[in-house]
Amino acid sequence: MLNKNVVTFIGCDCEYEDAKIVLFGAPFDSTTSYRPGTRFASATMRNESYGLETYSPYLDKDLENYNYYFDSGDLELPMGSNEQALHEITKRTQTILEDGKLPFMIGGEHLVTLGTMKAIVEKYPDVEIVHFDAHTDLRDDYLGVSLSHACVMKRCYELVGDHRIHQFGIRSGMKEEFQFASKHTDLHKFNFDGLKECTKFLQGKPVYFTIDLDVLDPAYFPGTGTPEFGGVSFMELLQAIHQVISNCQIVGIDVNELSPLLDASGASTAAACKVVRECLLELSKGE
Amino acid sequence: MLNKNVVTFIGCDCEYEDAKIVLFGAPFDSTTSYRPGTRFASATMRNESYGLETYSPYLDKDLENYNYYFDSGDLELPMGSNEQALHEITKRTQTILEDGKLPFMIGGEHLVTLGTMKAIVEKYPDVEIVHFDAHTDLRDDYLGVSLSHACVMKRCYELVGDHRIHQFGIRSGMKEEFQFASKHTDLHKFNFDGLKECTKFLQGKPVYFTIDLDVLDPAYFPGTGTPEFGGVSFMELLQAIHQVISNCQIVGIDVNELSPLLDASGASTAAACKVVRECLLELSKGE
Amino acid sequence: MLNKNVVTFIGCDCEYEDAKIVLFGAPFDSTTSYRPGTRFASATMRNESYGLETYSPYLDKDLENYNYYFDSGDLELPMGSNEQALHEITKRTQTILEDGKLPFMIGGEHLVTLGTMKAIVEKYPDVEIVHFDAHTDLRDDYLGVSLSHACVMKRCYELVGDHRIHQFGIRSGMKEEFQFASKHTDLHKFNFDGLKECTKFLQGKPVYFTIDLDVLDPAYFPGTGTPEFGGVSFMELLQAIHQVISNCQIVGIDVNELSPLLDASGASTAAACKVVRECLLELSKGE
Amino acid sequence: MLNKNVVTFIGCDCEYEDAKIVLFGAPFDSTTSYRPGTRFASATMRNESYGLETYSPYLDKDLENYNYYFDSGDLELPMGSNEQALHEITKRTQTILEDGKLPFMIGGEHLVTLGTMKAIVEKYPDVEIVHFDAHTDLRDDYLGVSLSHACVMKRCYELVGDHRIHQFGIRSGMKEEFQFASKHTDLHKFNFDGLKECTKFLQGKPVYFTIDLDVLDPAYFPGTGTPEFGGVSFMELLQAIHQVISNCQIVGIDVNELSPLLDASGASTAAACKVVRECLLELSKGE
Amino acid sequence: MLNKNVVTFIGCDCEYEDAKIVLFGAPFDSTTSYRPGTRFASATMRNESYGLETYSPYLDKDLENYNYYFDSGDLELPMGSNEQALHEITKRTQTILEDGKLPFMIGGEHLVTLGTMKAIVEKYPDVEIVHFDAHTDLRDDYLGVSLSHACVMKRCYELVGDHRIHQFGIRSGMKEEFQFASKHTDLHKFNFDGLKECTKFLQGKPVYFTIDLDVLDPAYFPGTGTPEFGGVSFMELLQAIHQVISNCQIVGIDVNELSPLLDASGASTAAACKVVRECLLELSKGE
Amino acid sequence: MLNKNVVTFIGCDCEYEDAKIVLFGAPFDSTTSYRPGTRFASATMRNESYGLETYSPYLDKDLENYNYYFDSGDLELPMGSNEQALHEITKRTQTILEDGKLPFMIGGEHLVTLGTMKAIVEKYPDVEIVHFDAHTDLRDDYLGVSLSHACVMKRCYELVGDHRIHQFGIRSGMKEEFQFASKHTDLHKFNFDGLKECTKFLQGKPVYFTIDLDVLDPAYFPGTGTPEFGGVSFMELLQAIHQVISNCQIVGIDVNELSPLLDASGASTAAACKVVRECLLELSKGE
Repeated sequence: MLNKNVVTFIGCDCEYEDAKIVLFGAPFDSTTSYRPGTRFASATMRNESYGLETYSPYLDKDLENYNYYFDSGDLELPMGSNEQALHEITKRTQTILEDGKLPFMIGGEHLVTLGTMKAIVEKYPDVEIVHFDAHTDLRDDYLGVSLSHACVMKRCYELVGDHRIHQFGIRSGMKEEFQFASKHTDLHKFNFDGLKECTKFLQGKPVYFTIDLDVLDPAYFPGTGTPEFGGVSFMELLQAIHQVISNCQIVGIDVNELSPLLDASGASTAAACKVVRECLLELSKGE
Repeated sequence: MLNKNVVTFIGCDCEYEDAKIVLFGAPFDSTTSYRPGTRFASATMRNESYGLETYSPYLDKDLENYNYYFDSGDLELPMGSNEQALHEITKRTQTILEDGKLPFMIGGEHLVTLGTMKAIVEKYPDVEIVHFDAHTDLRDDYLGVSLSHACVMKRCYELVGDHRIHQFGIRSGMKEEFQFASKHTDLHKFNFDGLKECTKFLQGKPVYFTIDLDVLDPAYFPGTGTPEFGGVSFMELLQAIHQVISNCQIVGIDVNELSPLLDASGASTAAACKVVRECLLELSKGE
Repeated sequence: MLNKNVVTFIGCDCEYEDAKIVLFGAPFDSTTSYRPGTRFASATMRNESYGLETYSPYLDKDLENYNYYFDSGDLELPMGSNEQALHEITKRTQTILEDGKLPFMIGGEHLVTLGTMKAIVEKYPDVEIVHFDAHTDLRDDYLGVSLSHACVMKRCYELVGDHRIHQFGIRSGMKEEFQFASKHTDLHKFNFDGLKECTKFLQGKPVYFTIDLDVLDPAYFPGTGTPEFGGVSFMELLQAIHQVISNCQIVGIDVNELSPLLDASGASTAAACKVVRECLLELSKGE
Repeated sequence: MLNKNVVTFIGCDCEYEDAKIVLFGAPFDSTTSYRPGTRFASATMRNESYGLETYSPYLDKDLENYNYYFDSGDLELPMGSNEQALHEITKRTQTILEDGKLPFMIGGEHLVTLGTMKAIVEKYPDVEIVHFDAHTDLRDDYLGVSLSHACVMKRCYELVGDHRIHQFGIRSGMKEEFQFASKHTDLHKFNFDGLKECTKFLQGKPVYFTIDLDVLDPAYFPGTGTPEFGGVSFMELLQAIHQVISNCQIVGIDVNELSPLLDASGASTAAACKVVRECLLELSKGE
Repeated sequence: MLNKNVVTFIGCDCEYEDAKIVLFGAPFDSTTSYRPGTRFASATMRNESYGLETYSPYLDKDLENYNYYFDSGDLELPMGSNEQALHEITKRTQTILEDGKLPFMIGGEHLVTLGTMKAIVEKYPDVEIVHFDAHTDLRDDYLGVSLSHACVMKRCYELVGDHRIHQFGIRSGMKEEFQFASKHTDLHKFNFDGLKECTKFLQGKPVYFTIDLDVLDPAYFPGTGTPEFGGVSFMELLQAIHQVISNCQIVGIDVNELSPLLDASGASTAAACKVVRECLLELSKGE
Repeated sequence: MLNKNVVTFIGCDCEYEDAKIVLFGAPFDSTTSYRPGTRFASATMRNESYGLETYSPYLDKDLENYNYYFDSGDLELPMGSNEQALHEITKRTQTILEDGKLPFMIGGEHLVTLGTMKAIVEKYPDVEIVHFDAHTDLRDDYLGVSLSHACVMKRCYELVGDHRIHQFGIRSGMKEEFQFASKHTDLHKFNFDGLKECTKFLQGKPVYFTIDLDVLDPAYFPGTGTPEFGGVSFMELLQAIHQVISNCQIVGIDVNELSPLLDASGASTAAACKVVRECLLELSKGE
């Protein structure tokens, strides 16, 4: 008898009961103000992840040695309804949290982070956010729309409050956003300077980790809608991820903003997959 | 003294006061359920229209002989807010109608037609719609979203009522949509059979003309998000446009669903531009 | 509890026990002599098939009304070993035939047909082949390789014998191949002339149906490695498929040679998906 | 001892002494007013021609049965100097004509035809031109430049005089160009209507045959800088080529305006190669 | 009443009278010896510049705080006539200089710099040139053409004389060009070593600043016709621009050689836009 | 009399008798497990190499000063037969070695190295291999295929034995491959650390040098089938090549794994060409 066609991110094929980490895709880009396409990221990444090996020579760890990654597939999200899309994301995150597992979301545009954060805050009211990005994402609204990718950190701020969002790599935004950040968030311009101190401060606290891949310089990651030169290198990102995950108590994580439509060579998708693999392995402590 | 950089569709450079036909772009694709990108159509078409000549050997007419096309540019539409986007479109259409001119919208996904129709129905309560498309667009909702491209004709139906929408070229839809059409619209499957009789029937009535370019076979128009083979040829479309415009009293018109991101060769953009040129010249009767 | 991420061709989601038709992908293009890439066809088609509707207005049938399509996913085929790849295909076909179901393979390059045919001939020694293609595929060898896409019909001929392969749409080959065909196969050049008579002749006999999508003119199907102009239109292909399936006893079927790497607009993938949908619905007789 | 790397169009590998037909490439597109790239056509076509067979089932002839095609490679033409580029083309054509062979040029933009025509007119003062194209190419100048692709037929007209240019498939131009044509050339709009009569009239006269591939509808040939829908099909072009070559005394020929940069799928290059193969075989009479 | 469709580079929308800096596009690439396409740079950059913010966190300055950038659009330049194209560029530059404003040209191939320099030298006979490039551009001629992109600095040298051209980042050229440079220009190989000393030397002198974007390593700027690895990083370029503009008296500036046709991801266009934004802000001293 | 169309890598146009270095292409990618396309590398590189200069400012050497590079073109290799393809490569290498010249192969996938190595080991039984790559290439088999790109260094190991393969830049592989390497090869992870010592050790020994271009970070080389971030920069690669060639007695060399199908901008092809030019010049000692 033949089996159904199960498609997962490489190495994420355990049974749900055994899973400690649960992936899901949030294929949504309805508020993307410029070049859309991130809706295709999670499905593309699953297929392309098989260009990777399961073993990381950086960490000397292998996905195959951990039987606890489960890929629950993509949510079916309605383009054109931000509220409903966020609601679906929140629900999925709640289920995962209720089952005592760690949610790992693959976006989608960055707005999707608001969906997970709503569930995270319910369970971890004192959560702190570590935010890697090229953009502040601190607008009040974008052409009148408050549930927009350009506002997602402002909306998260409204959930967690002052000085709880730790932003790194930021190099684009309106002047007003930087001014807001100087009062209300912990914004580090351009790179990861200050990250070590930040993770020390965060030790023992629940941390949500949101990675907008455009924190990478477009030399390393051209496949995104709003490339912003002057970013970090791929190895700098890996090291920063190591810094965060190995020092903090991660309660949820997402990786966003790959746009496969803009990735003619496939290299940006490969970069995104490698980031996810390294995150998964970093999160697999103690084995 | 140097002039500002005014960019128009080819030949559409008269003063607003002199204009009889006013173009505008509706760069919106927030509800596109599959591959987005139509938001870039109007800006791309302006640039590419200069690959055309202003003279049509089909009609032996020249845009330069008519000093009455004005291109008012693109609306600034908020991705992620269907209501607000439609509102902006309705306002622009109202302005044009109030000034006694003909609105000519370039989409954008097909949902934008609902914006113009709201203004049209106010002025022409007995308007009939001629609809060229591959898809029925008659869903009640799409994943719970009622303001979706997949529902636009159903929403228009709610504005104009039974038997007022005349659909041609339709070859894709849910079974329920075809069943609805059989009772409430005048749907012609696959091609333009019956168009001649239809335009006779429409003589003397105000007609809104909406052209979803995917009515063309993808051989002639691959640059669209949901290519549906089995469509009409480019010359069949030109002849059908001639049939409609030369026989009906057109009160508004739109051309939709070019996705430049999917048009590597530029040929689909060229097709869209030629459709617009021929429409403009057909609408320029009596000179 | 969350489900695994099952990915199928649209509408092909029944349980294996209930299935009458079983799809599988054969992602292999190791012998492609020119531009490779058909290995990506089946996975791409699964994702893109959701741009289709399940309902066909041509046949007035709906995949959702038939609970008997099962998608068993892609075989894992080793590039660089034609024998082993064919062996895997034969085994999968045997399993499906043994379970009393109809095998429906999505290639891959055309060589994969030899894999299914080996299993088919075991069960149906008197099988006839209906072959739609631009190319004769009747070479003895290609640069010394006998298990090559360019030789697949010659290899099949060696399985079934004289006058049992009925070739349509053929417009490319070596002179020697056409000469061979004139003696040993039933070759129809350029189009589907003679298909009606052929299907009459085939009535009551077991028929294997192999469709190389490059039988389509590249206007309708540019996304293939060896585009050969002068082919049939998409509607001609649909009608020919109808002619074959509605008149013959189909015992196996395959659809081959889509190369997603060459399909920048996605239209060729959409064409391939629509061909598969129409085949599935044509095969669903009597309900 | 190893040989040098000789690269030819498929089947064009005889010795120069034996050659009756001599190919050369004219990689020039310096005056292209819109999207450049035809400079890459001849080199690309040599590589891609091996996707073809040498045998034509249309003509039942094989390039391999004729040992008289020689490919002399590409001219080295200076971008930015129209005069010098044309001079190089004229010289190459003169050499070929002096050696009693037939020149077969692959462009490049259409301006290159003026280079060959200067040599042709010297040898054949009473030459007539058969011109397949979407565009009139009869401008006096283009932004002040008289040696422009948009003017090439006007410049040729100045060489050959009234009623000696027979234009087919024309569907784009300024009104003034069509008016000029109505007095001075033999222009047939849109398709090949009148070609049969024309070739009868031309019997016994020396004929130069220039094919701008954009005479094809962009459905069949998107890979060109100024796609103009409403053109002829590929098979119509093949039949028209047959009509011209089999009935006229061809003294020179060119095939122009493929732009490989705009041919993501490679299908347009394949079309161009097939046109050249069929022309070569048609020109190979009596063997 | 509706407005005309004015399209500018982001933030460059003041009235001409108020302008201190006047942008114009020079869409010309007729002498490009290899892959053309820079003609599309300026129009593409205007559209894409809206992916940027007007605020620079590097300089803590905002385009919106300066009401003195005017975008006068693209010149209409005739492909195929280098002399005429350069003449148009010189005229536009003269107008801007006569009105007491700073010309900021966006190319186009690098030859366009000769057009501005002719006007600059008239007004500033003692002008020095700072030249960022991967290539020497010091050929006497290219295949006999002296007005070629490959010769532009040699032509500029003939205008300004010995030791007045300061070249940085150079890593490609003929041996003879480097030998010429060693005697007649101030050439710095590979990077910006020596720039600080150079700008000290230039203090108080009028400086024309010409930036060929291929000075960037192709990792940061693949979208150019002749990518030359071993170049500078994006941040190194920004810092060098800062070094030049903040220390010199800039009398004219250009940014060249983006080829949007080669920029599938859009990242190179984003890089070019960010360079222009930073230049504009650097030039906005004292506010 | 006209010449045949000889196409070579830039500057490689001497007579065979005079040649010291003989290039050949190995257009083979039949075992590529993921995205194929390297079969097109050598032909593409010949065409694109003319975007380079023959002069290297890094080495102050010029290909034109050495009359000893011969390009013998591409082998005709059968896709689908690894054995036969390798046999053809071995034969070509043997011929070059027998004639006392240095073989320089351009791949193709990395498996082609096994073909040259078989000939090299015959002549130089004590040869050592310097191997630049992102991947270990030390699998025993890949899906049962032992002649696979993923196994090529394991097969070479079987030819040369323990501690004779010196691997640099490696950052991907199965855990077992790294374990194997730790015992049997001289593997250096991530970069060129240890290369200086290695080349000292190799002095006086015959060295085969195999460069898999994916040793480069995908920022510098996205045009490859399995991009693996975290690699070396282009200048680091040039310096490492200098280190190897200037210190070792090179007896054969290859450059592999460019996939032009994945190189939309052409930059990766330019990188590959520059690597080959620098290798050729480095190998041209003493003149």
